[in-house]
Amino acid sequence: MAEKFISLRNLQFLLYEVFDATSLTQYPYFEDHGRETFDMVVDTAMRMGKDMLFPALVEMDRQPPEFRDGRVYVHPLAAQIMKACGEGGWIGAQSSCELGGQQIPNMIMNAFRGIFCAANYSASVYPFLTTGAAGLIASFGSQELIDTYVPKMFDGKWQGTMALTEPQAGSSLTDIATTAQPTADGFYKIKGQKIFISCSEYESTENIVHLLLGRIEGAPPGVKGVSLFVVPKLRPDSHKGLTPNDVACIGIYHKLGYKGAPITQLAFGDNDDCRGWLVGEPNRGLNCMFQMMNEARIDVGMGAAAIASAAYYASLEYARQRPQSRPVNAKDPLTPQALIIEHADVKRMLLFQRAVVEGSLSLIFQCSLYVDMSTATSGEEKEKYEMLLDLLTPIAKSYPSEMGILSVSQGLQCLGGYGYCDEFPLEQYYRDVRIHPIHEGTTGIQGIDLLGRKVVMKNGRAFKLFLDELEKTIAAGRRVPECEKLAVSLAGAVETLKEITRSLAAISLKGEMELYLADATLYLELFSIVTIAWQWLLQALRAIEAQGACADADREFYQGKMHTCRYFFAYELPKIKGIAARLEESHDGLTVTMKPEWFD
Amino acid sequence: MAEKFISLRNLQFLLYEVFDATSLTQYPYFEDHGRETFDMVVDTAMRMGKDMLFPALVEMDRQPPEFRDGRVYVHPLAAQIMKACGEGGWIGAQSSCELGGQQIPNMIMNAFRGIFCAANYSASVYPFLTTGAAGLIASFGSQELIDTYVPKMFDGKWQGTMALTEPQAGSSLTDIATTAQPTADGFYKIKGQKIFISCSEYESTENIVHLLLGRIEGAPPGVKGVSLFVVPKLRPDSHKGLTPNDVACIGIYHKLGYKGAPITQLAFGDNDDCRGWLVGEPNRGLNCMFQMMNEARIDVGMGAAAIASAAYYASLEYARQRPQSRPVNAKDPLTPQALIIEHADVKRMLLFQRAVVEGSLSLIFQCSLYVDMSTATSGEEKEKYEMLLDLLTPIAKSYPSEMGILSVSQGLQCLGGYGYCDEFPLEQYYRDVRIHPIHEGTTGIQGIDLLGRKVVMKNGRAFKLFLDELEKTIAAGRRVPECEKLAVSLAGAVETLKEITRSLAAISLKGEMELYLADATLYLELFSIVTIAWQWLLQALRAIEAQGACADADREFYQGKMHTCRYFFAYELPKIKGIAARLEESHDGLTVTMKPEWFD
Repeated sequence: MAEKFISLRNLQFLLYEVFDATSLTQYPYFEDHGRETFDMVVDTAMRMGKDMLFPALVEMDRQPPEFRDGRVYVHPLAAQIMKACGEGGWIGAQSSCELGGQQIPNMIMNAFRGIFCAANYSASVYPFLTTGAAGLIASFGSQELIDTYVPKMFDGKWQGTMALTEPQAGSSLTDIATTAQPTADGFYKIKGQKIFISCSEYESTENIVHLLLGRIEGAPPGVKGVSLFVVPKLRPDSHKGLTPNDVACIGIYHKLGYKGAPITQLAFGDNDDCRGWLVGEPNRGLNCMFQMMNEARIDVGMGAAAIASAAYYASLEYARQRPQSRPVNAKDPLTPQALIIEHADVKRMLLFQRAVVEGSLSLIFQCSLYVDMSTATSGEEKEKYEMLLDLLTPIAKSYPSEMGILSVSQGLQCLGGYGYCDEFPLEQYYRDVRIHPIHEGTTGIQGIDLLGRKVVMKNGRAFKLFLDELEKTIAAGRRVPECEKLAVSLAGAVETLKEITRSLAAISLKGEMELYLADATLYLELFSIVTIAWQWLLQALRAIEAQGACADADREFYQGKMHTCRYFFAYELPKIKGIAARLEESHDGLTVTMKPEWFD
Repeated sequence: MAEKFISLRNLQFLLYEVFDATSLTQYPYFEDHGRETFDMVVDTAMRMGKDMLFPALVEMDRQPPEFRDGRVYVHPLAAQIMKACGEGGWIGAQSSCELGGQQIPNMIMNAFRGIFCAANYSASVYPFLTTGAAGLIASFGSQELIDTYVPKMFDGKWQGTMALTEPQAGSSLTDIATTAQPTADGFYKIKGQKIFISCSEYESTENIVHLLLGRIEGAPPGVKGVSLFVVPKLRPDSHKGLTPNDVACIGIYHKLGYKGAPITQLAFGDNDDCRGWLVGEPNRGLNCMFQMMNEARIDVGMGAAAIASAAYYASLEYARQRPQSRPVNAKDPLTPQALIIEHADVKRMLLFQRAVVEGSLSLIFQCSLYVDMSTATSGEEKEKYEMLLDLLTPIAKSYPSEMGILSVSQGLQCLGGYGYCDEFPLEQYYRDVRIHPIHEGTTGIQGIDLLGRKVVMKNGRAFKLFLDELEKTIAAGRRVPECEKLAVSLAGAVETLKEITRSLAAISLKGEMELYLADATLYLELFSIVTIAWQWLLQALRAIEAQGACADADREFYQGKMHTCRYFFAYELPKIKGIAARLEESHDGLTVTMKPEWFD
């Protein structure tokens, strides 16, 4: 088994050299921190990843959750990791000190999360889902709800979940049917079913707190009638005890991968005794939920990039050790075999993986920086960062997810037949990573979110701000000889993006919304590639700057960084040509006019 | 579970409308056949597929082969399918009547194989591997070997295998180390190990016949010293009995998918009592083996296309039944939900799958036609078909394999969360199809085969013949108004392919072979897309011709066919722009100059 699952050197490069995390401490919100705290967080995550999470990776896959008599039994690591993260303060670390958190920047906690995800994605989900759910109560819940739930969740004693999806609704939250009947006692009686809920039932936790979307009796139809509730598995009673709350697990999903985390189907209120407490205002549940959902989307991107990272290092280790065949120019069968890492096509597969992994991680930390800056600033500046974050969330969710699949697949391919066998972890990563384009909004939904909502919101202001950011990087690139060609390429790609956006806008202006959105997934792909090219140019600029005066080992790191950047621009960025060629013709409505009965 | 795994209508379209299989019967070799025989073959395969193979698809996955005390136990279907195929004469059907076969065209037998593979890929491997192994003995073995082995194999009583790969050699046949020591009794004593051998050990067959590559003592190093042997598990003795032949199964692989077929590691001659019989001339083993290997490569392409077909129909069935969300222009939550097949992005995912599946199948039948024409003709004409087949084999192997993965992945995506769960077969197809870019020569090896060998062989004559074939189709397309635009696009793509081939040739002429082959995988991809576009234009021409006067149900089939062709040209063909942009710059040697130590 490979020993490395993520590069600490690369995390440090992104945190401190590209995004300058320490400069956040100049803002009052983060002023108690410094490089020392940050290093401590990252080191702790690396230690826990190596000692606790990674060793159980395979075992959690081979011993998936079991469902017996309405109870779910999971691997012991679930309880251990919740305990360790609770005791270490990691679940609430990012929250305000007022709430019992430590106000650690999102960027640093994202590094923490990335390390966990790379070490063992399934295991990482337990604490991080709890972070999101507790954060939601903290943001929108009453003081009583906060006092009752948040400390227990931050301590890792109570698991949090996100209970949105229903059998008849799927991705369409408009069709949520779970009902909430008000009572005179301040709580609501909840009735309904939820499906595909992660970590929503298992024995080895004291309690499980569902953040649930439902509909108050008499609420308007559609998303405007959806409210958010806290619905615990066991409800705290007045004697500080816990009473069963009529939440039943009625099934567990047997999945392709991501097997360490139980995903279940839940029935609420079958015995008319399920109580829920409203979070935020009635009928505004979706607005609240989108705080958690947007964070979760970036977490998904991180999860995908992290699994791809682990797969990259597993394939890199194999490629460094496996002799096979000879260089093209040395076919004498009596000469020794070469290591496969010396073959150009294997190097191509490794460069591809590194380009995807480090490009994705860079974008995710870019988003973290926007999160932190919007926390630290106010007014127009805050709004700017929020808009950039909103715009880039679908990219940060879907590029790592979609490309992560291809990246892991290339990792598997590096091992040939062994990649297909369970002696090596590649086949597991291949199964695990496939969840990401599905959960927290499919790639199709991300495309519609980007093109239908984000690009056009506030008269295209977010898009304009994004272009400004790219312009700045391009201008910096033009001033550095090693980056000039890359900057020119990126400038050309930005022109393509702008032209395509204009040509699609023309369809939208005619009111042809179905046609406008028909190729939204392709638009998302094009937009993503340009975005990742920008991130690679940012990284290249720092690498060039740094490699003048650095240690030898570091010089190799920077040279590899530059070469991977060149790889991205040479092999990945040109893919926008093909996508643009299609998007220019989107008005032909090829998919819109396809009739269902023509499918044979 | 979906009921349909392959389209009989589409198979008929390809066999009779596009490639006119019945016209083969004008040649003496095939003169005993006609549409009736062909229909009988296809109907039998459909019946066996539906009644025998498909129902066991999931069970074979959930109950993989077990290895206990040196023995391997497989699902009962293995024995049943070998028996049924043996009794039906399907294992040897394609062989000459002289050998006990029926001289059925390759094209028809490929339809048979495709149906089996779509119904249950793992199960299909048992008989079809036997076909290949027996065919090899028939082509190159002595009369005694033929008499001893071929009838038993054609009858399905003895399993055939292909034993090439060794632990230290992997894909590099140069490094084969299994030894063969000549004896005075006409046989050789075999000693060595083989890995990743499909169907190479299981209890429910009378005997297993390995077609094994080894090295006669004193043979020259490298591939010029490799010979081919028949090495049975049990050797026939003079009393018509069977004696153990010192072939031991020492391990079984636990695989991501393709679980119904046992893949094992074998030790030959550990007790110095393993006998092998030479097939063909000494040191010419690779030439012989490549007959089987090339057939196996096209079989792999078929296997991938067939699994993608089954996945397509499973996702199509789901998309026709699952209501979710509403049309873009009808957001009123009180209106009924739409079926997801009505959403443009779902149609796009279905069109993508159909484009890959039917484009791949078309190319595979095109190759079958070349096989059959080279069987039926002689002299220059025969040579022409052989060259076209040689050139297109790496494409027919790798395009369906690589794109099959993406196609199945889109099928899985159509089902959202359910696609990730084992209640539906998509997750199994996703695992099963991943083997194809690996076995029988990885995609990297196919690229090197195409660019390093096939395109340049005989001064580029095969490539020239291929371009002539495309020109003919383009000329026909220009004459049909509905196809004119497509023909012009294809002509442009052919120009791109020619330019790229020339620009790479310039590198080769300078003797820079490593640089020349560094992007061979991308060249393969570009070449493949152009080839599949050609196949789609061929299909479109027939669809246009036929839809003038046809039944209503058929009209929908042809309209779907045309629309899928347009999809391929609008969404897939433009991808060559990005690939070409990279290949134009291949001389920069970006992967060649990447140093192994720069990988972090």
